[in-house]
Amino acid sequence: MSNQYLDPNLKVFSLNSNVELAQEIAKVIGVELGKCSVSQFSDGEIQINIEESIRGCDVYVIQSTSSPVNENIMELLIMIDALKRASAKTINIVMPYYGYARQDRKARAREPITAKLVANLLETAGATRVITLDLHAPQIQGFFDIPIDHLMGVPILADHFKSKELNGDVVIVSPDHGGVTRARKMAERLKAPIAIIDKRRPKPNVAEVMNIVGNIEGKVAILIDDIIDTAGTITLAANALVENGALEVYACCTHPVLSGPAIERIENSKIKELVVTNSIALAEEKRVEKIHQLSVAPLIGEAIIRVHEEQSVSTLFD
Amino acid sequence: MSNQYLDPNLKVFSLNSNVELAQEIAKVIGVELGKCSVSQFSDGEIQINIEESIRGCDVYVIQSTSSPVNENIMELLIMIDALKRASAKTINIVMPYYGYARQDRKARAREPITAKLVANLLETAGATRVITLDLHAPQIQGFFDIPIDHLMGVPILADHFKSKELNGDVVIVSPDHGGVTRARKMAERLKAPIAIIDKRRPKPNVAEVMNIVGNIEGKVAILIDDIIDTAGTITLAANALVENGALEVYACCTHPVLSGPAIERIENSKIKELVVTNSIALAEEKRVEKIHQLSVAPLIGEAIIRVHEEQSVSTLFD
Amino acid sequence: MSNQYLDPNLKVFSLNSNVELAQEIAKVIGVELGKCSVSQFSDGEIQINIEESIRGCDVYVIQSTSSPVNENIMELLIMIDALKRASAKTINIVMPYYGYARQDRKARAREPITAKLVANLLETAGATRVITLDLHAPQIQGFFDIPIDHLMGVPILADHFKSKELNGDVVIVSPDHGGVTRARKMAERLKAPIAIIDKRRPKPNVAEVMNIVGNIEGKVAILIDDIIDTAGTITLAANALVENGALEVYACCTHPVLSGPAIERIENSKIKELVVTNSIALAEEKRVEKIHQLSVAPLIGEAIIRVHEEQSVSTLFD
Amino acid sequence: MSNQYLDPNLKVFSLNSNVELAQEIAKVIGVELGKCSVSQFSDGEIQINIEESIRGCDVYVIQSTSSPVNENIMELLIMIDALKRASAKTINIVMPYYGYARQDRKARAREPITAKLVANLLETAGATRVITLDLHAPQIQGFFDIPIDHLMGVPILADHFKSKELNGDVVIVSPDHGGVTRARKMAERLKAPIAIIDKRRPKPNVAEVMNIVGNIEGKVAILIDDIIDTAGTITLAANALVENGALEVYACCTHPVLSGPAIERIENSKIKELVVTNSIALAEEKRVEKIHQLSVAPLIGEAIIRVHEEQSVSTLFD
Amino acid sequence: MSNQYLDPNLKVFSLNSNVELAQEIAKVIGVELGKCSVSQFSDGEIQINIEESIRGCDVYVIQSTSSPVNENIMELLIMIDALKRASAKTINIVMPYYGYARQDRKARAREPITAKLVANLLETAGATRVITLDLHAPQIQGFFDIPIDHLMGVPILADHFKSKELNGDVVIVSPDHGGVTRARKMAERLKAPIAIIDKRRPKPNVAEVMNIVGNIEGKVAILIDDIIDTAGTITLAANALVENGALEVYACCTHPVLSGPAIERIENSKIKELVVTNSIALAEEKRVEKIHQLSVAPLIGEAIIRVHEEQSVSTLFD
Amino acid sequence: MSNQYLDPNLKVFSLNSNVELAQEIAKVIGVELGKCSVSQFSDGEIQINIEESIRGCDVYVIQSTSSPVNENIMELLIMIDALKRASAKTINIVMPYYGYARQDRKARAREPITAKLVANLLETAGATRVITLDLHAPQIQGFFDIPIDHLMGVPILADHFKSKELNGDVVIVSPDHGGVTRARKMAERLKAPIAIIDKRRPKPNVAEVMNIVGNIEGKVAILIDDIIDTAGTITLAANALVENGALEVYACCTHPVLSGPAIERIENSKIKELVVTNSIALAEEKRVEKIHQLSVAPLIGEAIIRVHEEQSVSTLFD
Repeated sequence: MSNQYLDPNLKVFSLNSNVELAQEIAKVIGVELGKCSVSQFSDGEIQINIEESIRGCDVYVIQSTSSPVNENIMELLIMIDALKRASAKTINIVMPYYGYARQDRKARAREPITAKLVANLLETAGATRVITLDLHAPQIQGFFDIPIDHLMGVPILADHFKSKELNGDVVIVSPDHGGVTRARKMAERLKAPIAIIDKRRPKPNVAEVMNIVGNIEGKVAILIDDIIDTAGTITLAANALVENGALEVYACCTHPVLSGPAIERIENSKIKELVVTNSIALAEEKRVEKIHQLSVAPLIGEAIIRVHEEQSVSTLFD
Repeated sequence: MSNQYLDPNLKVFSLNSNVELAQEIAKVIGVELGKCSVSQFSDGEIQINIEESIRGCDVYVIQSTSSPVNENIMELLIMIDALKRASAKTINIVMPYYGYARQDRKARAREPITAKLVANLLETAGATRVITLDLHAPQIQGFFDIPIDHLMGVPILADHFKSKELNGDVVIVSPDHGGVTRARKMAERLKAPIAIIDKRRPKPNVAEVMNIVGNIEGKVAILIDDIIDTAGTITLAANALVENGALEVYACCTHPVLSGPAIERIENSKIKELVVTNSIALAEEKRVEKIHQLSVAPLIGEAIIRVHEEQSVSTLFD
Repeated sequence: MSNQYLDPNLKVFSLNSNVELAQEIAKVIGVELGKCSVSQFSDGEIQINIEESIRGCDVYVIQSTSSPVNENIMELLIMIDALKRASAKTINIVMPYYGYARQDRKARAREPITAKLVANLLETAGATRVITLDLHAPQIQGFFDIPIDHLMGVPILADHFKSKELNGDVVIVSPDHGGVTRARKMAERLKAPIAIIDKRRPKPNVAEVMNIVGNIEGKVAILIDDIIDTAGTITLAANALVENGALEVYACCTHPVLSGPAIERIENSKIKELVVTNSIALAEEKRVEKIHQLSVAPLIGEAIIRVHEEQSVSTLFD
Repeated sequence: MSNQYLDPNLKVFSLNSNVELAQEIAKVIGVELGKCSVSQFSDGEIQINIEESIRGCDVYVIQSTSSPVNENIMELLIMIDALKRASAKTINIVMPYYGYARQDRKARAREPITAKLVANLLETAGATRVITLDLHAPQIQGFFDIPIDHLMGVPILADHFKSKELNGDVVIVSPDHGGVTRARKMAERLKAPIAIIDKRRPKPNVAEVMNIVGNIEGKVAILIDDIIDTAGTITLAANALVENGALEVYACCTHPVLSGPAIERIENSKIKELVVTNSIALAEEKRVEKIHQLSVAPLIGEAIIRVHEEQSVSTLFD
Repeated sequence: MSNQYLDPNLKVFSLNSNVELAQEIAKVIGVELGKCSVSQFSDGEIQINIEESIRGCDVYVIQSTSSPVNENIMELLIMIDALKRASAKTINIVMPYYGYARQDRKARAREPITAKLVANLLETAGATRVITLDLHAPQIQGFFDIPIDHLMGVPILADHFKSKELNGDVVIVSPDHGGVTRARKMAERLKAPIAIIDKRRPKPNVAEVMNIVGNIEGKVAILIDDIIDTAGTITLAANALVENGALEVYACCTHPVLSGPAIERIENSKIKELVVTNSIALAEEKRVEKIHQLSVAPLIGEAIIRVHEEQSVSTLFD
Repeated sequence: MSNQYLDPNLKVFSLNSNVELAQEIAKVIGVELGKCSVSQFSDGEIQINIEESIRGCDVYVIQSTSSPVNENIMELLIMIDALKRASAKTINIVMPYYGYARQDRKARAREPITAKLVANLLETAGATRVITLDLHAPQIQGFFDIPIDHLMGVPILADHFKSKELNGDVVIVSPDHGGVTRARKMAERLKAPIAIIDKRRPKPNVAEVMNIVGNIEGKVAILIDDIIDTAGTITLAANALVENGALEVYACCTHPVLSGPAIERIENSKIKELVVTNSIALAEEKRVEKIHQLSVAPLIGEAIIRVHEEQSVSTLFD
C-alpha cells in the first residue's frame, strides 16, 4: 500500500454488515483491516475472536446496523465488550447507517424509543465515541453522552447532481412533511426552489391524495429523503410529480434500506435514476441499473484520520 | 373546595415561574398547593423551605423553565434535591414549557446539546417522571430514561379556531421548513390544506425572500408554530401572506415566549389574533388585546390525576 | 378460567420465542396473556405495540433467549424499554433459557463475556428482576445487581426417572469435566453413584479417546447435562458407555438447544430416550419420538405467584 | 508574550463571571484565553460558541459561581457539555469561588444540600477535575468523586498583614463559632492569639449580645471569615471589638460576596480596612477605598501549570 | 410483648457491633429482631445467613461501624448485598455511630476521604436510606444521595445535666477550635456561656500550651465533644480547666470510642464524670464508675417507627 | 539495581497483606516500591499516607485479600480512593489472591454474592484494572466491567512436578466434583489420567464415604485444588487414596489459605508434600517442612510490565 498510515495504534475492524465499505475505508486511511473472525455457532450465538493484540489502541469498528439489524447490533455490542475487556484505549463505533433511527420518539402510547435504547446499549457496552452519517433525526445526537461525529452525506448527493447535465430547471421535492428541511438544504446547494408532497385523505374512507404544494410543472424534480425503505412513498411521489407535469424525476437518499417490494416499485416507477450511498451494502439482486451508488468511504476515512489526529471534523463540511 | 381530591399522598407544589397556572391546576385536581417558600438570599442564591412533611408522598412540582430560564431550572433542581432528601416517594416534574428545547442537536461544531443536558440534570437531581407539553422536537422524549408523559396542546388551539366563525376557506401555514408536520396536524383537525413559508436568499448578498409554497390566495391563513420567541419569523410570514393575497391572518402557538421585540412586532403586524396557551405566564405588559390565551390547566390537571391513579394518559387524546 | 388470579396488577406478556410455554404459565397463574403485538417491519426492525395500559403494574415478560438468539434478546430489550417508558411499576424478566450463558468467562485472550454483557443490557434497559432456570454456571447470578430468582429443573428430570421402571442399577454420568457437580446432584436424588467421561487425546495427532472414569458396567447409565446443543459430546458419550458395557443409556438436560446435526445424531445414537424440558420450544421437526419433553410451566407459574405475593421462592425446592 | 506556554494542548477558557481574573491567570500561564462567545438569546437562554477546535486538549474553564449564581452555574454546565461533545481530553473546572457552598448540610427539615447538588451536576455534565479555593467547608471536597485541587487563600491574606506595619499586638478574631479553626490558622501564621465573638441571646425576647470570648483589649484585632456576604456579622463584630477596647480593627476574607447592604455597612463600620481576594469580581460600585483586593491569579495560574505538568500541587503550600 | 408492632413488613436486624442496643431498639418498636446468623469462617470471611423471608419488607439493619471498624463495615455491606438479592423492598441502614467520619476531607496531600468512600460503598451495595446520629461533620449528610435521617444526641446529654444538681454556675467548654458550634448548642440548652481550649505552641520546639479562651474561673465546666477516642485532648483540657480555677469538670460526648489509653487517662484525670451514649457498645473493661452511659434506643426506635409510618422525623427535635 | 525500569510513571505500591511478594515483584520489574505508610489509628481505623506524588502515573497496588480479609479489603478500597483523589492516571489492582471468591453465587436462599459485591466495591472506589491469579471460578472475571488480566498458576505447579523425579505413574486427583476441570488441565501438562474423590453419604445418618472414581492403585497421586483452607477435604482425600492403594500422595494448590486446623491436619496426613505458591504470605508458624512454596513474583512482575507496555499478556501462557 503506497499511503500506509504510520501510527500502529490506529486499528480498524470490520464486522459483517458492510465489509466492502470497511475495506474501502481502510484503504483510504492506509491500514489493513484488523484481524478478527466474527461468526455464529450452530445455534446462532455470535462468536468473536480478535486475533491481534489491541491493548492501548484506538480502535474503530465499522458496522452499519442495517438488515439483519438485530444480528448486526448484537455483533457490535459483543465486539465492544471484547475490545473493552481486551484493554482497548478508545472504542470508536463507526455506524454509516444507524438502524432503528426512525423509532426516535413515542408516537403512540406505550411505544419504545428504540433509537435511544440502542444508544444506551452502546454506551453500556463500552463505546467511547460514535461516528455516523445523516441520522434520521439530528436529535439522536443527544441520545448519547459520549462524543458523536455526525457526518453529512447530502453534499455527496448534491455534487452528483451538480456534475450531471440535467434537462431543465430543477426543483427539490420533499416526499413528506418531515423532510422539508432536508430538501431545503439540498436546494441551497443546487440553488433551486422546493416543493412538498402533501399526502392527505380529503374525507374519511376516501383514498389518500398526493397533493403537491409548490410549483413543479415543466421542471426536473429531484426527490430527496434520508432513508428509502419499502419505496412506497417515494415512488408514489415520483408518479404524482410526473402526472402533475414534472419534466423528469430523479430520487436520492443517503441510506438505501430498500426492503420488501422496494426494488420492484422503483423499477416500475417514473423515477429515472435513484442515487444512493454505500452506507448500506446492496445485495447483488438490488444492484439494478436504475440505482446509482456513491461511496462514503473517502468521507468516513478522512473523518477517522481527523478524529485520530485530533483535528477538527466539522471543517470537512466548510 | 367542592371537588376535594381525597388521597393526601398526592401533593402539588408550585415554584416561581407560573404560579397562576399552578393554582388553576391545583383547583382542577382538588388540592391546595403544597406549602413551601422559594426565595433568594441577598446574593441571589435560591433558598427553598418545604413547610410540610412529604415523606412517602407522590409530589408534582409545577415549573415552566421559561424566562428567567436559568433561575427557573436551578429552582427546579434544588427543589428536586430537597424532595429527594426529604423522602418523597416519587418526584414528578410538570414542565408546561421545556426551556432550552431548541438546543436539541449540534447544528454547528462544538455546540452543546443543552436540552439533553437539562434532561440529565433533572435525572441526576432525582426526578422520577416528567410531564410536559408540545416539546419542540418529540425526540426530546428520548433524552430521558425515566417515564415522560407528553401532552398535546394543538387540540386546544384547534378547538379554539373551530369554535370561531372564520370569514372563508382556511389554510394552515407553517412559517418555516421544520414545522410542516405540526401544520399538517392542525390542518387535519380543521380539514384544511397547508402552505409553507420558504424563506431563502436568492443570491449571496441579496435579502432573504419570503417565498410561499402552496396556495393561500383569498384564504384565511392560520400560522402555527410551537414557540413564538422574538416573533420575527411569524410576523414577516403574516405580512407576506397578506401581501400575497391572504384574506386575513391568524397565528397560534403553544408556548408564548415573546421575548425582546415580540410584542411590538405583533402589534405592528398583519396578524389579526395570536392564540397561545398559558404554558408560559405572560407578564402584565404582554397581555395585549391581540393575544388570546387559552388555559392548559384542565389538561394538565387531568393528566396528573391519571398518572396518580395509574390510568392511561394517552386516551386523553383519543 | 376457573382459577382466575385476582390481582389485576399482575400482568404476564409473552414475546415470540416460546409462546406455548407462556400460555401454559399464564394458565397456571390464572391470567390471560397481556395484549401486545411484537412483529418486524419489512426491513427486520422489531415493532412492539403494547395494547393495554400497564401503568403501575407488576409486569412479567416471558422470553427464552434461544435461537434466533439475537432477535430474541433485542425483542426483550425493546419490550423492557417500552414497559419502562409506559410506567410499569416493576419489570420482571422470565428467561426459562438464558442464551449466551456459555460465554461466561474469558477462556482465551480477547474474548467477550457475552453472558455478562447481556446482564448489563437487561439492567440498562430497565429490568428490575430476573427469573431464570438452571443457569449454565450459577455464578451468572452474580452478573446481575438486581434480584434474580434461580429455579432448578433437575428435580423435574429426576422425578421423571424416579417414576420410570428402569432395568437395573443406575449410574449418573457426566459427559465432561465441568458437569460433575450437576451429575452429583442428580445422583443424590436417585441415590446412585456417578461416573465421568474423560475425553482426552493420549498423544498429539492421535484421536481423542472417550475414557470413562468410574464404574458403569452392567448399569443403566443416565447422562445429564444442562444444555444439549449439537449433541456431539452426549452422543459420543452414550456410545462409549454402551461399548464399555452399560446396559442401556438415557440422557437428559434442562435446555434442548438441539442445533445443527443434533437431531440426527440423537436418532443415530445409542441413547434410548432423551428427556428435556420445554424451557426452549422445539420446532415441529425436532419433536422426534426419542425426545420426551417435560413442562416447567407449573414451576415457573408458581414462582411468579410467589414473587408477586412476596413469599419465599426457595421453599419451592425444599 | 514573553513567557509563552509551549504545550498547545493546554487551553484556558473564561466564562462571564470573572473575565479580569481569567485574563490575569492566562497571562501567568503564558497563554491566550481560548476563543469562545458566551451570550444570551433574547429570551435569556445561554448560547455558547467555542470558536476553536479543542479535540484532545486539556481544557481549563474559569468561572466563579458568584452572583448571578444561577446564570453562572448554568453557563458552566452548558460549557462542560459543549466541551465534552467536542471531544476535549480533560475538562478542568476552575472555580475560584464555589457558590452555594453554605448550603452544605440539612440544617433544618426538608432542606436541600445544594452544594452537593452542584457537585453532582458538574460531574454529570462531564467535568473531570475541579480546582477551587477556600471552600466554605473542607468536607465539600468529599462531595466530588473526581479529583479536586483545593487551594488556600489564607496565606495570601496573612502575607498582606505580615507586610503591613500594624500599631500593636495582634489578635485574630473569629466572628462566629464556626470559624474558629480558620482564625487559628491565621493566628499561627501571624503568631497571635485568638478570640471569638459569641453572639447569643441572653433571654428569650431580648436582643442578641455580641459577647467576646478571649482577650482583645488594647490590641489590633483582625477579623477573618471565608465569605463576607451582607457584612452584618462582621461589622457588628468590628463595632463590638472597638467598644470592648480593641485598638483598631481590620477584617479579611477570601470571597467578597458583598451583597445587599454590605458596602454601606462596611463604610459605616469601625473596620479600618477590609482585605479580600479577587476570587469574585467586584463591580465598580463596590471598589470603595476601604476594600483592598489581592490577586489569586499567580496562585491559580501556578496550580494549573502543575496540574497540567503532573507535578504536586500540595507543595505550593509547603 | 405488650406493645407489639403490627406491620409484619417492618423487620429489624442486628449485626454484631452493638447487639444490646439493637435489642433495646427492637423492644421500643415492639418487634423481635430478625433471624439471621452473622459469623466468620475459619479464614475470617464473613458468613451471613438470613433465616426468614424478607421479600417485599422494609428492613432496618442496626450496625455501628465502631471497632473493629473494618469487620463491621464489611458485615454491613455483605448484609445489604444479601438483602438486596433477597428482594427486600427498602434497606434502611441504622448507624448509631458512623466510623471513619473524621476522615471527611483531604487535610493533607494524597489523603483519602474515607467517610465519603464509605457512603459510596453503602449506596453501591444497595442501601436505600441511612439513619444516623451526631455525625462528626454535618456535611457528611451530603456524601449521600439517598435520604438520610440525622438524629441528635446532644439533647439527651443536655437533659442529663439539666436533671443533675450542679454545684454552681456552668460553663460549656469546647476542647478544640472545631467544636465551638457544638458547645454553643449545648450552652443554649443549659443557658450557659462558653469557653474554648486553644491548644497552641508558643514557639517552635516548645511544648503546646492549653490556653483557655473565655472565663471559667469558679465555674462548673462541662466539656463537650462528639467523639472521645484516646481521650488525650479531653483529659488535658479537664486538667487545664481545674488548674485555671474551674470548680469541677464534667465531660460528655455522644460516641465513646475510648480506644487505647482512654480509660486510664479518664480515670487519672480531673474529670468528675464522663457522660456518653450507648451508640457504641462499651466492653466490660470500659464500664468504669466514672463513665455514665445514656441510651439512644428510645430515640432511634421512635425514629424507625416514624420513618416506617412516613411521619416527620424532624419534629422529634422540636 | 541492575535492571532498573526506566519509565518513572510506573509506580508499584504494596499494602500490608503480602509485602514480601510485593518486594519480589518490584525487583522483577526493576522499581522501588512506592513510598506510603498504611497503618491503623488506635481505634482500628486505617490511615494511609502516600508519600510521593503519583499525579498522572500508572499505579499498581499489590494486595492479596487473604486473612485478615476485611482489613485487607478496606485497606485496598481506601488506597484506591486516595490514589483517585490524588490524580493517578490508572489504578491497577494486583490481587494475587482474591478473597471471598468462594461466595460467587447464591447456593441457598438469601445468601449474598460477596465476590460480586467486592468487584462492585473496587469499581466504585475507582479501580481501573484488576490483575489476579487462578480465580476460584473463572466467571468472576465477568463480575467486573473493567479489564481484568487473569493469570494462571497451574503451569508453575505443573513445572514443579515435571522437574521432580516421581516414583511411578502419576494420576491427577480432584478432591471434589467442582475441581475436575482443574485436574484435567494439570493432567494434560503431566500427560496423566485423572481420578475424582466422590464424597457422598450412602444413606441418611450414615457417615460420608470417600468414594474414588477412577483408577489410582499403585500410582503416584497428585491432588490439586485452587484453594486449601482448613485442609479437611484434601487430607481426607489423601488418606483415602493411600488406603485405596495409591503409592504416594502429593497435593498442590495455588492459594494456601491454611486456616484453623489446616497445618495440623496436613502434618498428620498421608500427604508427602504440599506445593503452594506465595500468592498468600505464610505466617512463620505455617512454614512447615511439608509445605513447599513457589514464587509467582516472576509471573506477576512480567504481567505488570506487559500491561504497562501494552503488550499481550495472554502470550505469557502460550
